[in-house]
Amino acid sequence: MKFILACVGCSREYDVETPLWRCRVCDSPISLKIEDYPELNRFQDIVEDDLTLWRYGKLIPFSDFRVSIGEGLTPVHIHSFRGMEITFKFEYFSPTGSFKDRGASAGVTRANALQASTIVEDSSGNAGLAYSAYAAAGGLRARIYVPEDAPPAKLRLVSAFNAELVKCRSREEASERAVSELKQGEMYVGHLWDPFFMEGIKTEVFELYEFSNIDFDAVVVPTASGSHLLGIYRGFIDLLEMGFIDELPAFIAVQSAGCSPVYEEFYGEKFEGDGSLADGLRIKNPPRMREILKVLRANGDVVVVNNDEIREAIKYLLKLGILVEPTSATSWAGMMKLESEYRKILMPLTGTGIKTAEKLQNL
Amino acid sequence: MKFILACVGCSREYDVETPLWRCRVCDSPISLKIEDYPELNRFQDIVEDDLTLWRYGKLIPFSDFRVSIGEGLTPVHIHSFRGMEITFKFEYFSPTGSFKDRGASAGVTRANALQASTIVEDSSGNAGLAYSAYAAAGGLRARIYVPEDAPPAKLRLVSAFNAELVKCRSREEASERAVSELKQGEMYVGHLWDPFFMEGIKTEVFELYEFSNIDFDAVVVPTASGSHLLGIYRGFIDLLEMGFIDELPAFIAVQSAGCSPVYEEFYGEKFEGDGSLADGLRIKNPPRMREILKVLRANGDVVVVNNDEIREAIKYLLKLGILVEPTSATSWAGMMKLESEYRKILMPLTGTGIKTAEKLQNL
Repeated sequence: MKFILACVGCSREYDVETPLWRCRVCDSPISLKIEDYPELNRFQDIVEDDLTLWRYGKLIPFSDFRVSIGEGLTPVHIHSFRGMEITFKFEYFSPTGSFKDRGASAGVTRANALQASTIVEDSSGNAGLAYSAYAAAGGLRARIYVPEDAPPAKLRLVSAFNAELVKCRSREEASERAVSELKQGEMYVGHLWDPFFMEGIKTEVFELYEFSNIDFDAVVVPTASGSHLLGIYRGFIDLLEMGFIDELPAFIAVQSAGCSPVYEEFYGEKFEGDGSLADGLRIKNPPRMREILKVLRANGDVVVVNNDEIREAIKYLLKLGILVEPTSATSWAGMMKLESEYRKILMPLTGTGIKTAEKLQNL
Repeated sequence: MKFILACVGCSREYDVETPLWRCRVCDSPISLKIEDYPELNRFQDIVEDDLTLWRYGKLIPFSDFRVSIGEGLTPVHIHSFRGMEITFKFEYFSPTGSFKDRGASAGVTRANALQASTIVEDSSGNAGLAYSAYAAAGGLRARIYVPEDAPPAKLRLVSAFNAELVKCRSREEASERAVSELKQGEMYVGHLWDPFFMEGIKTEVFELYEFSNIDFDAVVVPTASGSHLLGIYRGFIDLLEMGFIDELPAFIAVQSAGCSPVYEEFYGEKFEGDGSLADGLRIKNPPRMREILKVLRANGDVVVVNNDEIREAIKYLLKLGILVEPTSATSWAGMMKLESEYRKILMPLTGTGIKTAEKLQNL
């Protein structure tokens, strides 16, 4: 088995140890490919005796250099609703309370393996916090670029981890400065670009396969950069390539009104409204747009939700005893708008509502 | 196998379905006993195919009525420090971010089984939030009595779950009013008293036995009501009674300066200082004092930590990438003060630092 970095634009290939964050020739994002998958009788044969996502370390690059603090192996909870069987996967039962911990663990592991001094990330909050924690765990420095209106609780926690916090006027400025201010020996691990992030995310799928159930009609995922949706897709592809599944579920991207570029590309029309409650979904130009569209066009859809719909979703989940942030509740809101025959739905719940307590009252 | 409620004062026994929170004769706390433990060749033979703490439902009362939203099966992380092997167990990777979720799941399950309309709890924050979530999940109402200076983020979240929040002038007043204002059909589930709370907590030990390691010299636990320490003790007792272990570890209670009644009883002297950062450790008269002292005197100790020591502990854990609230960091602070030969230490990390972000900056 061999890991290879491949440009999604010009298909140029790079050795997995090449320290780059986009293609040196055409500036497109890089994806990670596995060549010569292991031939396994049982998936279990590749699983290590480790109670984190690194139990699947043989399928993740640089696993000998793992930076791990308990991420992964999240529980599932099945909820029946209008004839559907919805599998919640609690991705915020994790070190810093969001699914980003999986990606940060894999991304910082690569920085650790390649001996970077500092990791650099741009984020609206959760990713910054996750990368700050993993940088600390790996003994690396961290510099995090955030929009100045990111949720204050998240920014306080980034500071607590001793990361350098750079406040920018907008999410776009954060992305631009994160790369333009990069210095020698530092590694840009921005999850909008970094293919290693998705190698952490894909383990969600392995866990479902190993411990519960992988038979889903559809996966519903809040989508900004697409790194969560594409990471889950990566996991299904790995299982498919190894022969453990025969087909892929449909992929449903959920975006928020006011920032729905995937919807606009997919349907060729604007979507008006206000979905600003979902502060984690505000990437106007996701670098991996082409990859997202390819997945959705093969078998999927994109729906857009507004603040009223997000509020209803938060309230519904709270009644189940489930405490998620507005960005995460968009999944439920999006599913409610789907006109489909999907019956078995995977819904990763992405971020804890503890960080956004002020938004969960008086709904 | 049979569950029995037994008074820890006068030893009077009650049927497990009796709706009471303390002994009707002598007002002492009630403990839960198991009679006729199952004879098992392997612990695994009693384990259900469930990825929550309810996989051990056969050892928990009323498990057919379980109210469950993903609690338990928390990861462990081993950290080497000065010749010691410290096993962190991440108890805040859970529905509402603290170990209280385990106890609330078991406590609300009993209220559900006995068809209470409303659960009533007194709490400095985390327990109130956990019980609010589980009441919602179980379709029960909740009324939570809190001191008015409890952390605001925790109180906002209790309200988000639609629980009735009753602010009191002090932690003591909260305890008093919770029981004095109890109405017909309501059930007091206060974790200072409720033995079912500990039936949830004890599963931490079963998980260690099933998945990783149970061979510890000592367990270090932040101690206010003692429900965490005694719950862990309960788990070890169950394993001992079933013949899966031969001896118990030492139990180390950690209290905070300014509120250290267990220390005062154990050593017969006051402990001066300020440990107010640990806002979860402020029970002046723990109802289960006798039980706590019995466990500690058999094999254990109690240490008291102050704010400076708590700050150092928080900083140390943040450097490892670990984000806990001050109350939880007292374990590390307490361990640093132990003069002992303990080498293999279990340290449950009890609450996420996300709820107390403002206390983690500028340490």
